[in-house]
Amino acid sequence: MKDNIPVKPGVSATVDAAITHIQRRYRMARIAFLLVAVVTVTGVVAFMTPASGHADGEAAPIFVTKIPPGYRDWRLISVAHEEGNLNSFAAVLGNDVAIKAYRDGKLPFPDGTIIAALHYHHVPSEENNKVFGRAQSFVPGPPTNVQFMVKDSTKYAATGGWGFAHFQDGKPGDPAFMKTCFPCHAQAKASDLVFTHYAP
Amino acid sequence: MKDNIPVKPGVSATVDAAITHIQRRYRMARIAFLLVAVVTVTGVVAFMTPASGHADGEAAPIFVTKIPPGYRDWRLISVAHEEGNLNSFAAVLGNDVAIKAYRDGKLPFPDGTIIAALHYHHVPSEENNKVFGRAQSFVPGPPTNVQFMVKDSTKYAATGGWGFAHFQDGKPGDPAFMKTCFPCHAQAKASDLVFTHYAP
Repeated sequence: MKDNIPVKPGVSATVDAAITHIQRRYRMARIAFLLVAVVTVTGVVAFMTPASGHADGEAAPIFVTKIPPGYRDWRLISVAHEEGNLNSFAAVLGNDVAIKAYRDGKLPFPDGTIIAALHYHHVPSEENNKVFGRAQSFVPGPPTNVQFMVKDSTKYAATGGWGFAHFQDGKPGDPAFMKTCFPCHAQAKASDLVFTHYAP
Repeated sequence: MKDNIPVKPGVSATVDAAITHIQRRYRMARIAFLLVAVVTVTGVVAFMTPASGHADGEAAPIFVTKIPPGYRDWRLISVAHEEGNLNSFAAVLGNDVAIKAYRDGKLPFPDGTIIAALHYHHVPSEENNKVFGRAQSFVPGPPTNVQFMVKDSTKYAATGGWGFAHFQDGKPGDPAFMKTCFPCHAQAKASDLVFTHYAP
């Protein structure tokens, strides 16, 4: 089909031929461009599609999407306080496997270890400050989120053997956010990706 | 018996009699003094001896002097952070009676409740700050002390039904220090003398 290029009537056949040539070239170039584009897009899509559970570097990470039951009854590992943007309190609890591993002082943590970090706002306690007579007391405010690390060296091989989890109001964190867990925790290689130490 | 007062031989009988009189007076004064002293000391001792479990204002408070076994395995009630002179982290744990009472939301706490406050220095975490890229992370440093509140309305009636305890390096706090617990906690009458609320 002819492209919509205005051609003056009466121009010589040579010009006609030249214009047709250009039109064909343009069409071919467009086809070529489209072909390259399709191949590229296909390649990108193939790259992004999560492969389930492959232990090679290309596999997409798997996250924990169900809250481990009974975590609120687990024993204490430690506490923490983050200032800055987080401004949060943490109570870090561990299931029996976790507590035993910490107390035995053995690394890496065995499969079955689950560590829970319960986060709350870090807020001043007006009632305590009245008793103390000065502003110095901070207590947990409303809960912000609960995060977990679940050890399964096979299932979570893509993220150092740990399945990361984040729940806010019972809902898991979105994938984009969850992807930030592992690169940060990977910097704690010496302690099997776990930042929290045991408080005696 | 004669006191060891040198008497010159050959002095008249009158002087002898005078001296003997003085000696007897001196002896009687000494006896009188000793008698008064004994009565006074007895009175002081009687006053200081702890009366066990009397519910009147005169009874001396009783403190907990043995660490409740297994407290490190109890469940989490909450966490706390004190600035100022204390500069400390607390992990507050409770035995089963305590946890149930908190979750039932019932006051006063029943007899058998034991609440443990594990205290640590509140220290910056250099290793975490390196990963965060800024100074914002605080973790428990060395333990400072462990404190307990043990509910027994009869035994500890003098201190609101609670036996207070403080241990540092396994040793109980001295009585003068322990006497400061109750007057401060008494200001939390509305929550049965307990400052810590349950963190969900």
